[in-house]
Amino acid sequence: MHKWNERSRPLRLERRFEFPTYELTRDFLDRLGELSEKRKRFPDISFGKTYVNLTLQPESEEKDATLSEDDMKFASEIDGLTKN
Amino acid sequence: MHKWNERSRPLRLERRFEFPTYELTRDFLDRLGELSEKRKRFPDISFGKTYVNLTLQPESEEKDATLSEDDMKFASEIDGLTKN
Repeated sequence: MHKWNERSRPLRLERRFEFPTYELTRDFLDRLGELSEKRKRFPDISFGKTYVNLTLQPESEEKDATLSEDDMKFASEIDGLTKN
Repeated sequence: MHKWNERSRPLRLERRFEFPTYELTRDFLDRLGELSEKRKRFPDISFGKTYVNLTLQPESEEKDATLSEDDMKFASEIDGLTKN
């Protein structure tokens, strides 16, 4: 989790991923799309040819929601997509 | 082309696309990925569950480059991806 930056107002986790080629960027986005559908969570994503920026907000939409164990687990699952 | 907004500093075209479902958002992103590879142009893209924001910069990287006919054609090809 050390590569995610926690920001406030609104509370969120952010991480930038970089890839050597457009093909690898797309592969990561495809895997992320599958994970999003499985978990029913759709983070905000920005990307270009060789980078992806992700913003994760707390799953709970309550005011003053904090980041839950599930939020951390989802972030960690995203990290796992870059392996292999 | 009327749905693209021209912005300056840096000069760019921006357009927001909205979709009723995540599946349709992903379909559009897949078609856009194929077009990007074909044209060797990789615009900056932001997306969430049901929207895609696109930023196109002039293909020419020269200082004070203007939007060319090719830039307009690429924007128009992107518009075409939402049809059918």
